[in-house]
Amino acid sequence: MKTADVVVVGGSAAGVTAAITARRHYPGKSVLLVRKETQVLIPCGIPYICGTVGSPDKNLIPDGVLEKEQVELLVAEATAIDRERKRLITTSGEVGYDRLIVATGSHPVTPLIPGVEMDGVFTILKDVDYLRRMQVLLKTARDIVVVGGGFIGIEFADEIRKTGEKTITIVEIAPHCLSLSYDEEFCVEAEQVLQSNGIRILNATKVAGFVGDGHVTGVKLSNGETLKADVVILGTGSKASAELGKAAGLRIGATGAIDVDRTMRTSDKHIFACGDCAEKVSFFGGGHSTLKLASIATLEARIAGANIFGITRENPGTVGVWSTALGDFALGTAGLTETMAKACGYDAVAATVEGPNRHPAGMPGGAKTKVKLVFESNSCVLLGGQVRGNAVAGEIINTISACVQKRMTADDIATFQMGTHPALTASPIAYPLVNAAELAINKMRFSSPAC
Amino acid sequence: MKTADVVVVGGSAAGVTAAITARRHYPGKSVLLVRKETQVLIPCGIPYICGTVGSPDKNLIPDGVLEKEQVELLVAEATAIDRERKRLITTSGEVGYDRLIVATGSHPVTPLIPGVEMDGVFTILKDVDYLRRMQVLLKTARDIVVVGGGFIGIEFADEIRKTGEKTITIVEIAPHCLSLSYDEEFCVEAEQVLQSNGIRILNATKVAGFVGDGHVTGVKLSNGETLKADVVILGTGSKASAELGKAAGLRIGATGAIDVDRTMRTSDKHIFACGDCAEKVSFFGGGHSTLKLASIATLEARIAGANIFGITRENPGTVGVWSTALGDFALGTAGLTETMAKACGYDAVAATVEGPNRHPAGMPGGAKTKVKLVFESNSCVLLGGQVRGNAVAGEIINTISACVQKRMTADDIATFQMGTHPALTASPIAYPLVNAAELAINKMRFSSPAC
Repeated sequence: MKTADVVVVGGSAAGVTAAITARRHYPGKSVLLVRKETQVLIPCGIPYICGTVGSPDKNLIPDGVLEKEQVELLVAEATAIDRERKRLITTSGEVGYDRLIVATGSHPVTPLIPGVEMDGVFTILKDVDYLRRMQVLLKTARDIVVVGGGFIGIEFADEIRKTGEKTITIVEIAPHCLSLSYDEEFCVEAEQVLQSNGIRILNATKVAGFVGDGHVTGVKLSNGETLKADVVILGTGSKASAELGKAAGLRIGATGAIDVDRTMRTSDKHIFACGDCAEKVSFFGGGHSTLKLASIATLEARIAGANIFGITRENPGTVGVWSTALGDFALGTAGLTETMAKACGYDAVAATVEGPNRHPAGMPGGAKTKVKLVFESNSCVLLGGQVRGNAVAGEIINTISACVQKRMTADDIATFQMGTHPALTASPIAYPLVNAAELAINKMRFSSPAC
Repeated sequence: MKTADVVVVGGSAAGVTAAITARRHYPGKSVLLVRKETQVLIPCGIPYICGTVGSPDKNLIPDGVLEKEQVELLVAEATAIDRERKRLITTSGEVGYDRLIVATGSHPVTPLIPGVEMDGVFTILKDVDYLRRMQVLLKTARDIVVVGGGFIGIEFADEIRKTGEKTITIVEIAPHCLSLSYDEEFCVEAEQVLQSNGIRILNATKVAGFVGDGHVTGVKLSNGETLKADVVILGTGSKASAELGKAAGLRIGATGAIDVDRTMRTSDKHIFACGDCAEKVSFFGGGHSTLKLASIATLEARIAGANIFGITRENPGTVGVWSTALGDFALGTAGLTETMAKACGYDAVAATVEGPNRHPAGMPGGAKTKVKLVFESNSCVLLGGQVRGNAVAGEIINTISACVQKRMTADDIATFQMGTHPALTASPIAYPLVNAAELAINKMRFSSPAC
């Protein structure tokens, strides 16, 4: 029988990172990673297999990272956990563990819409063969309907349009695409980019059913219209894959994921969980969070992996940091949007500034950068920020994330010590984070004496 | 006689920002900015007037920012401060003030080298006409020698080579260019870029004198060699322009700049100073700092401007954050380099990682990013970081700066909540800040039980 000091179930972002972290923190312990996939897709890269990257095979997490850290790999499906005997039961036999880390991820939610089972209707399964087949169908497809205008939906739509003459329609149930991720003004900008790329967007629209004879040929909308469709892509959310943990009697949390404490330990003190399969609480107020992102998964994995033989790290709760790209147009959020903050019950004050990201503005590579910061008006603490710009927005949002994580106040950010350079950043006189903070201070001063 | 509630002397980064900040924080107060220049150059953009930007006239701080914030402008030279009568004496008459902010900047140091007074030898004066004349001479010059391989020197050299067939040599007294700004391995990389662009670098080399007959024709080195030179550019440091303050009897600090406390107040409680003309202390240990950067100037200006009628902000000391660009190659530093940290007396531990800034690595716009973090080994607190990458390095260094400013530990950074995206950033499994922190933890664990 195989045994290892630490056994990790799951080979995506959380599993790989947990295994590596365990090895780094406990170099004397053996680590074995069990996964069912022969090849593991980079989850956030999946939309790009259709266009920019060209194939699922070019979007894989290289196994070299496991080898380099001396993590043993077993490709087999885990079917059960025998907690009493501390064994993971797999399709390749039992594996003994001292500590187990469950990182079984999530799976797409298939909406209960008539006809959803038809051929040509795809969810975004993290499976190389499944996506390869989808790609084959997409190549010859003329009419494509994407259901759900979240990250995955809009990125798929924008990538598919790069592959040739297609009619692409996004059907979104909410008033705007991306409305769970950005404030409305940012959503509208993203929609304009998609539309200028020739993609049709139907917001506030429900899908009533899929039509076809075995293979999908159309999408019936609740407004009576029917869209032609050779392929349908469902980007309608995902759900924790908690079955393995649940069947083993691990406590399940309020959102249906495996319950963990701040150290990422489950109700069994020898078993940890991390990533999409684990319950999350928000950094803001500690309520339940259903955010699922590879970057959250790796954070949790770094906590779990470090804690397995002695607690050294605690999870302060999920801040929520993400970015979206459509060619040269990029958006990012860290923490709460204004909409989220108000929905959470915060007395939120927002300030938005926009300016060139070079100085002088004529320097090459320049683009206008828009930054919106959201503060709690009594404490003046930063609750979140959003950025719109070119590719550099993906790192500006991480500076904002640092400010959120350390609960910086508007004054802290107004006196932020940033580096600036004509060819790389905005001017120090008008650095957008700083200017947005100053603007917010001005607004707050008239509503709150604390600032 | 002109009067204003707040009078600011100096129209560059510090002066403009102090004036704007004063207006924003005290909307009921009048602010007047006095400067001697008709047009003000963007200081960090000066090297680019020769190449990318093309002319000093395209590298100006627009006066629109003053108008927009209702800051009155007086173009006149300030010649004295009458502190008793609270008046600034200028070439256009006296100006009464309630509060005065001195932001008189710095001026280049001219080294005492025989022949330095000759025509064709230029310092980097922040003066449009002077630089226009330099640009005219550079156009027809064949042989150019840059003395000093700091920021200004190398950026000038790299810009001039874009303007045509020239022989360009950098003469640097230290063992490497940029050695006051980056650790040696980063300096070497920058030198390689310069050399591959055809620029000759003579490190560890002193200039003995300039030869010529009125106009410079050559540079005599201490090793006996003489370089041909039609134009010489001196990038050999700068000195605080503290004369106005000194003559008025303001206390002068140990480095020769105007002494200020943490609120940016001078020895006269009605007078504040900020920017290159003001004394600075380091964020690390509080010793004297002679760093002079536009981004430091604007930080100090935001403190001074906010404090003039009631203290609300204090300067925690200069972190020191900067970046350098040579085409697509960019470097950045926040806080202490390993060399600086050891020189300061810290028991410093450094960790360096390198990896692609896209995932999968084949995504467009990708480049390898190298990140080096330096920690104090007992407390595990971050002392500084350096980045090498493409243009995005200019913002990654600001995330590191946030971590330094909030004195994050290696563990804080290892569990940093960053956003990642295939088209914008490194993979969440291998995000460089996080990986460098994990590597440092591993190193420190064997030397310090505190981590």
